[in-house]
Formats: sequence, C-alpha cells, structure tokens
Amino acid sequence: MQKYVIKGNICYSKTSKDLCIVENGYAVCENGRSAGVYETLPKCYEAFPQYDYTGKIVIPGLCDLHVHAPQYPFRGLGMDLELIDWLNTHTFKEEAKYADIEYARRSYTIFANDLLYSATTRACIFGTIHPQATALLMDELEQSGIKAYIGKVNMDRNCPTSLCEQSPEQAFAETEQWIADTSGYKNVKPILTPRFIPTCSDALMEKLSLLQKKYNLPVQSHLSENLGEIQWVSELCPDTAFYGEAYAKYGMFGGSCPTVMAHCVYSKEAEIALMKAQNVFIAHCPESNTNLASGIAPVRTFLDLGICTGLGSDIAAGSSLSIFKAMAMAIQCSKLRWRLVDQSLEPLCIEEAFYLATKGGGAFWGKAGSFEKDYEFDAVVLDDQSLPHPQALSVRERLERLLYLAQDSHIIAKFAGGKNLFERAG
Amino acid sequence: MQKYVIKGNICYSKTSKDLCIVENGYAVCENGRSAGVYETLPKCYEAFPQYDYTGKIVIPGLCDLHVHAPQYPFRGLGMDLELIDWLNTHTFKEEAKYADIEYARRSYTIFANDLLYSATTRACIFGTIHPQATALLMDELEQSGIKAYIGKVNMDRNCPTSLCEQSPEQAFAETEQWIADTSGYKNVKPILTPRFIPTCSDALMEKLSLLQKKYNLPVQSHLSENLGEIQWVSELCPDTAFYGEAYAKYGMFGGSCPTVMAHCVYSKEAEIALMKAQNVFIAHCPESNTNLASGIAPVRTFLDLGICTGLGSDIAAGSSLSIFKAMAMAIQCSKLRWRLVDQSLEPLCIEEAFYLATKGGGAFWGKAGSFEKDYEFDAVVLDDQSLPHPQALSVRERLERLLYLAQDSHIIAKFAGGKNLFERAG
Repeated sequence: MQKYVIKGNICYSKTSKDLCIVENGYAVCENGRSAGVYETLPKCYEAFPQYDYTGKIVIPGLCDLHVHAPQYPFRGLGMDLELIDWLNTHTFKEEAKYADIEYARRSYTIFANDLLYSATTRACIFGTIHPQATALLMDELEQSGIKAYIGKVNMDRNCPTSLCEQSPEQAFAETEQWIADTSGYKNVKPILTPRFIPTCSDALMEKLSLLQKKYNLPVQSHLSENLGEIQWVSELCPDTAFYGEAYAKYGMFGGSCPTVMAHCVYSKEAEIALMKAQNVFIAHCPESNTNLASGIAPVRTFLDLGICTGLGSDIAAGSSLSIFKAMAMAIQCSKLRWRLVDQSLEPLCIEEAFYLATKGGGAFWGKAGSFEKDYEFDAVVLDDQSLPHPQALSVRERLERLLYLAQDSHIIAKFAGGKNLFERAG
Repeated sequence: MQKYVIKGNICYSKTSKDLCIVENGYAVCENGRSAGVYETLPKCYEAFPQYDYTGKIVIPGLCDLHVHAPQYPFRGLGMDLELIDWLNTHTFKEEAKYADIEYARRSYTIFANDLLYSATTRACIFGTIHPQATALLMDELEQSGIKAYIGKVNMDRNCPTSLCEQSPEQAFAETEQWIADTSGYKNVKPILTPRFIPTCSDALMEKLSLLQKKYNLPVQSHLSENLGEIQWVSELCPDTAFYGEAYAKYGMFGGSCPTVMAHCVYSKEAEIALMKAQNVFIAHCPESNTNLASGIAPVRTFLDLGICTGLGSDIAAGSSLSIFKAMAMAIQCSKLRWRLVDQSLEPLCIEEAFYLATKGGGAFWGKAGSFEKDYEFDAVVLDDQSLPHPQALSVRERLERLLYLAQDSHIIAKFAGGKNLFERAG
C-alpha cells in the first residue's frame, strides 16, 4: 500500500531552526514519497486509506549515520579504554568471529530485529571484512525494510591476522565479488568501507579507489576521532597535511564520491573546509566520543558552516541503538563543551538535535528525513501515554520530552520508503 | 514475610573497588536484614521460603540521594537554561501549583508509582513549601514501601510570592507542625530542607537550626552547583569563606546533623575538607549538572578522600528517575572531565559507579545498599533476557551492560527493608 494518509500530530524539520508541528494533521504518502502535510486533508486525498493515530506523535524516521552491526553483542561492555586499545582489546576479537557464518547469523538476527523495532529507518552500517557474513547482514536488513548502506570492511594492516586482508589484490577481488553479489537489493546498498587509515595501506586505498570509480559507490569511514589516532595517521601518511587528506588523495572524500565520516572531534580548519567544499557528511556520535573519552565534537561549528551533519549511534563505542539517545547526548555534550571548552559555541537546542537526527542525516539518501513534499516517506509513530503528567503539555513539549525519555516501547508503527514495517498496539 | 532466601546471581559492593559476585548464590533475609550471601545455602536457612531467581541478577536496591518530586511533571523539558534562570522560568512556576492539593495528588500519584517500579529502594526527596502536599507525598511513598527522607521545602527570599514563606516565625510553626504530623511513618521520615542559601534568609536558617536541634533531624540542600550561584551566595553571605559555611554556621552541615548536599561541582579544598571532617554526604547528579550546563563534579576526588558520596537523579534538572542512568552518566561525565579538564583524575570504573549507587548512597540510612551481614535487606531482581546476545557473557558482563541498558521493564522484583514491594513475570 503506497498511497495512504497518516492522521496525528505531525512533527518534522524544514531547517535546523525550523521545527514544523501540525497538530491533528495529515501526512500523505503517495508512491513511497511525501505528498505533503496538511491541517485539513485536501479532497484529492480523501479516498486514500487512513492510519488514524489521532493524539499520537508522528515524526520522520530517524537516521543512524554510523553503526557497527558486528559490535552489537558487546554494546555496554568494555568501554574503559581509549580508541586504539579498545579496538585491539575488544573490537577486533569480536569481529574475527564473523568468519563463522553461524555466529554471524545468530548475531545479525538480533541486530536486525532490534534495529527494526527502533525508531531508525535509515542507517549507514559497518559489517566486518567477511563478504559472506556481510551479505547475510544485508539479507536480514533487506527483509526488515530498513533503508541502509552496508559495508564489507576493508583493512590490511595494524590488525590481527584473522581480520587482515591478505593482499590489496585479494581485497579488490573479494570486495568486487561482494559488490556484484549484493547490488540487487531494493532497500540496502553496498558502501565502500575502508575501516580507517591506520588499518588501510596505501596500496589497499588505491584498489578501493578503483572500485569506487568503477561502481560509483559511496564511502564511509572514520575521521579525527581521537588524539592518539590523529598522531598515528600523521606518522603513517607523512605526505598529508591533515587526516582527511589521506582519504581525499584517493578520491574518497566527497565530491563525486558521496562520503560519510564518523566523529570529526578534532578536525581543524583546513579539514573542515575541505569537508564543506566536498559535501562530506559528518556522523556525530556523542555517546561514543564520551564512552571512549575521545572528546566532544564542535557540532555548532558544523551547523554554522552548513556542513552536512547527522547523528550516529556508533554501536559498540556507543551503548545504544537509540537515535533519541543520540539526540539527547548531542545536546548534553554540546552543553558540557560550552561550559568546559569554548563558550563561543552555543549549545544545541531541541530543534537542532531533531534536525540532525532526521533531515540532517537523511540527506545522505537525498530527500529523506522530512515530510516535506517529495521526500521519501519514512515515519515513526510514538505513543507517549505511558509517560503520564498532571499538567497540560503541548505537542512541542511532548516531543521535547521524548528526546530524553523515548524507549522502543513507545514506538507503535514505523514506515520506510512508504512501506509499513510494523504496527502494534500502544 | 521477613525470613526468606533469594536464589540468583548475587552482586553487591564491599568497597568502591570490590564488587562481589556470587553466581547461583543465595542472599538471605532475616527480620528485614541481610543474614549474608552464600554459595551453598547453610542448613539453618534451608527451611526459609525461597524466591527462585536462578539465572537472574540480584542487586541491592539503588539509592537516589537527590530528587525533587514536584518537578517530575516537567522532566525532559526546558533544560536550555542555567540554574537560576531555570528555577525562575520553569521550576518555581510548577512548584507553586502544589498549593492545590488536588494537583499535588494527581502529580504525586504518578511520581510514587514510577518510583515504585524503578530500581530505587531509598531516596532523599524534596517536596515543595506546602505542608499538606508534602504530607500527601509522604503518604504515597509510605504505602509504596520505599524508604525515603522527604522534606517540606523552606524558602523565604528571592522567589515568587506564591512560594515565599511569609516570615521565619510562620515557617518555623508550619514546619514544626509538619514534623509532628509526619513523624509516625515507618518507611518515610521527615528531613529538614532549606532549599538553598539564595532562597533562605539568615533568620529562616536560624529558625531551621532550632528545629534541627529540637527534633534531631537530618538536613538536605544544594551546594556549589553553578558558578553564578556560588558568586551570589558569596554576596549574600559576606561573612563566609565558602558556600558550605553558610550551612555550617547554623549547625546544618554534618557532624551531629546528618546532611546530604547535592552537586558540589565547584567545591574548593576548604569546603571539601569540611565535608570530609563533618561526614557530609554528597549527592552526585551527573545528568543534572550536564543538562543545566553546570559542569562536572570531581567524583574521583571525593572517592579518594573517602567522602561519603552517592548518586542523585535530580529530577527535573535530570530527566530520568533511573539510577542506572545516573551510574552510566557518572562514568561518562568522569571521562569527559578527564579528557577536557583534568587528566590527574582518572575516570570512574563500573565498580565505583555501582558502589556509589548502592552502598555509597545507602550509607545515609546507616547499613543499607549492600548484602553484607546486618545490612537492611533491599534487593532488585533484573531479568535481562530481552537483551539477547550471540556470545557467552559472564554475570559481571551482564551487570556492566545493565548499567547502560537497564530499563524499568527489566526489573521483575523489588524488596526494601525486607518487604517485597512487587514481583512480576519477566
């Protein structure tokens, strides 16, 4: 059913400052796209079937621009180390298990189910180096109806043998085969995924660059997350002036190559300027940056400069898949940064956090993350009656409260690209 | 039933570094107190009735050392201001409503119900200035079985007329009457509650000091939360060398007067030394200090000095009643403080956060917050099967994960002072 109307309190962003709320309104879906939001339903849509969510809150699906599916088993665990030690101690050990397809199946089934019943409708997802396990993850997500870019990870240095691709040639061949095997999905698409510069040799980056051009693929990776990491990259790539150049010199830093980079906690002026010029997306991951004691990214700067920015859960350096939690932590971390680091950068407000989680991140898919006309129709319906209150609350207040208090149990329906993924009793 | 055995994976703190886990163990309750934790049940307890929570995680009840019950309606709302503006814009307006006993009933019924089904078994709670509404709150909590100190708030300056006590004499009389009316409860007890120095005149503090001595009551208040507040106190009390002295000079800062002070974000050496000398408890409220952009308290310093410290939700500057969330945020904020402010203070670890939430805060009630022998028997049973995982996890890992991921729905039973408050299907 690709033509229908959702009745409810419709909330969506037009800009990072402009949160539109239409109480007792109508969001219209036609052929998988929004046909607009209306206070009174136009005659031409009266014959469309209606989902009646009167009194409930209807928002665009949330976008998770950075999440590691194979790390989901150890979310909430072992976050007492900084990035590089954390990778070596916990992450690589867990990711090596995905050579075993049965383990991968057990794990990815859990991940896909939890993502389905979250508020996330779109995600940029890291797998592992294993093509078979990554294809299985893509199968799972394709079936769920969630719109996702999913990457087989590439890495060939500074990692355990079990996770190390044997040669750039082999990496090229396996990745090309994986692209061929997984390009036919409707909801999920392959994305090139060099893990990060410390684990990717120049020769590997060269090969990935060829694949990127040949198949016109988007790219996801990590950038300027941690001070030790940045120092290491400067040693590994003495010919670069800053970290981002190590991707840019292989043509994998925006421009004709749609790119999303996680973190950018310590990106300096030149790096930020290049991201802006090349339309590189930033996945801001406040919980991850907190848990690994990386720091706090200057999101106010990104917004002021008009850099494409969204939010990431960054499982498992982030403990929670919830992009509601990412919104709350984005605000909270921006306040601590303002207090402790730099009072020239105003903390984020509710409108901005909501924008980042919806239209900001959704832009990586083109027109997604809003109910404006022609946007892909992703919607999440929230029933907040289990959060009772003695006073009257406006819809704006109920939405604000949900940024802090929403749990998956509040979600009673979800739609992605026009398709109803589930509906359940409130 | 005051004699029983709980079978399960028993987890409790002995010290801030020493987390004891007895897998498939037995926690024994006798006359409302712990008779110890055992790997094999001693013969003398074999005849006790058993709660069989095999496979589940059993922890001491959590302690919330600082929560404002009347602010519960606006949790998650309006946190875009710093302390004093937030009080004037949101808090005082809401608290004034509690002159209306019907509003108070509607609100406090919600608060008491949500607190009951949380993991909190003990709490230090602020009411409003209204004796009748505060007595109603005490009724509600008494019935729930939660152990709580609850305070009628005192304040007589720098606040709206509707929340301003008319004279120190009237405040004395009303507060004394309220003490008389509410001292007969079993689970809840009155606590003197001068809101904070900016809203309490010297004359009022003098009167409260008389009541404190006459009835030997504990005291709760706020201390050194925000830089503007601290500056204001120094102007209001030019005869004090630091904020804490403004309480100490009225005998309401520990010593023979059990005292809990919320926040202490900016307490300097002399203030910390006096708290240590007087056994003043600190309620560390990391979410509140984040949401109001106050800063991050140096909890590592408090622990190293052996200062009595627990956690507070600080509703509604904190958005959540969950002391699990307070544990996670205590760790997270300590990491950001380490990264951004002072690398001489190591971040908190899981053991320390768990200690703060249980035995650390529980000490305000004497022997509470642990399963060590003779401790008051408070227990919470957690069923984490809705957090599936493909790999094996130790009990320690399951507990660690719950600090970040626990929701009220994971709680399947709760006991306070030996009494079973509820049990439900997992």
